[in-house]
Amino acid sequence: MSLFRLDSSILGERSTSRAVADTAEKAWTRTHPSGLVARRDLVASPLPPYAWTSAVSAGFVPADQRTDEQTEAVALVTALVDELFAAEAYLLAVPLYNYGVSQHVKGWIDLLLTDRRLIGTEKPPLAGRPAALITSRGGGYGPGTPREGWDHATPYYRRIFGDLLGMELHVSEIELTLAESNPAMAGLRDQARQQLEAGHASAEKHGELLAQHVLDQRS
Amino acid sequence: MSLFRLDSSILGERSTSRAVADTAEKAWTRTHPSGLVARRDLVASPLPPYAWTSAVSAGFVPADQRTDEQTEAVALVTALVDELFAAEAYLLAVPLYNYGVSQHVKGWIDLLLTDRRLIGTEKPPLAGRPAALITSRGGGYGPGTPREGWDHATPYYRRIFGDLLGMELHVSEIELTLAESNPAMAGLRDQARQQLEAGHASAEKHGELLAQHVLDQRS
Repeated sequence: MSLFRLDSSILGERSTSRAVADTAEKAWTRTHPSGLVARRDLVASPLPPYAWTSAVSAGFVPADQRTDEQTEAVALVTALVDELFAAEAYLLAVPLYNYGVSQHVKGWIDLLLTDRRLIGTEKPPLAGRPAALITSRGGGYGPGTPREGWDHATPYYRRIFGDLLGMELHVSEIELTLAESNPAMAGLRDQARQQLEAGHASAEKHGELLAQHVLDQRS
Repeated sequence: MSLFRLDSSILGERSTSRAVADTAEKAWTRTHPSGLVARRDLVASPLPPYAWTSAVSAGFVPADQRTDEQTEAVALVTALVDELFAAEAYLLAVPLYNYGVSQHVKGWIDLLLTDRRLIGTEKPPLAGRPAALITSRGGGYGPGTPREGWDHATPYYRRIFGDLLGMELHVSEIELTLAESNPAMAGLRDQARQQLEAGHASAEKHGELLAQHVLDQRS
């Protein structure tokens, strides 16, 4: 039993997405106590920034004519995709940054999608596999708020992991994470605490779903 | 007279966004033959990948207590924002990659937005300044196509450069750029050529608009 976990917060131990993902992971581990959690932290261990352009250009060159950079980039991509193939469930902790995707996550997706194994087939190989997406946002983006529609990241993640790769996506969204530290948001702190609590509850449920899905597939 | 130009294509000389931006730049230069074009190519000269996390963490530390990395990151951000302030018009060449933003452009935006000068005031300092955005897409994303709604980048660029920074945005969109090289898209080549031609025409018009805007401001 294997769970792939992605982290991308730049806040380290103070990260909300990380804390909520911990809850989902614990829930998964309760069902699979001897299961393997394969972690990739895109901020603690950044992917090499030049790899993507090399991986793309490598696609136009026969394997035996590639530069060292291209060969290394292709090997990295193969390893990244292999670690997705090796897992049966996915836990993706992805904060909203500047109203958009995490630059680290986009860099990782760009690398992954140079590998034709991921999308080059009729039925994408990850189709139907369960994924819990944990997204955290500093402010509020709900209907009627001034920032409604300003979260350009979650729809993109749904597009890539859901529509394109075919994963069965379970999304936990936590907002107002900056309320605790931002004096201008002091009036929103009660609401922020409720959101955080609901986020943990949702993540716990999704962690259990991921664990159960694997059992169902095997039974 | 000064034009800031951003490039972010990974295709170098084969880039459509770059070629179309050249057309806009030439149109601007016709009106301002002795004008300065300040270029930033995020792929040819990538920004240091660790700078953003250092710039963010530097915001929580007094200037004289920062690490070398933090000091360097803040200096980089200051230079990036200064080069925007120094220009009077903007030309942004930004391809769609994997249905989303360029990882390079997102990294640049993340850096920029750590500088409170850009958004920390009632009226953003770049508000009302004219910008031509050139976006190129390998496939088709128009109404009724299977990929309608899959361009998650252009709405984000409109959000950041338009809504957030307040630039007066003129967008040229070119689609089907992969038709010429992709056998599966051979039937779309005529349409692709028309799109490219229309893109150049639009970029030329926008280049002239940018040039004229500056003259109007000064008269």
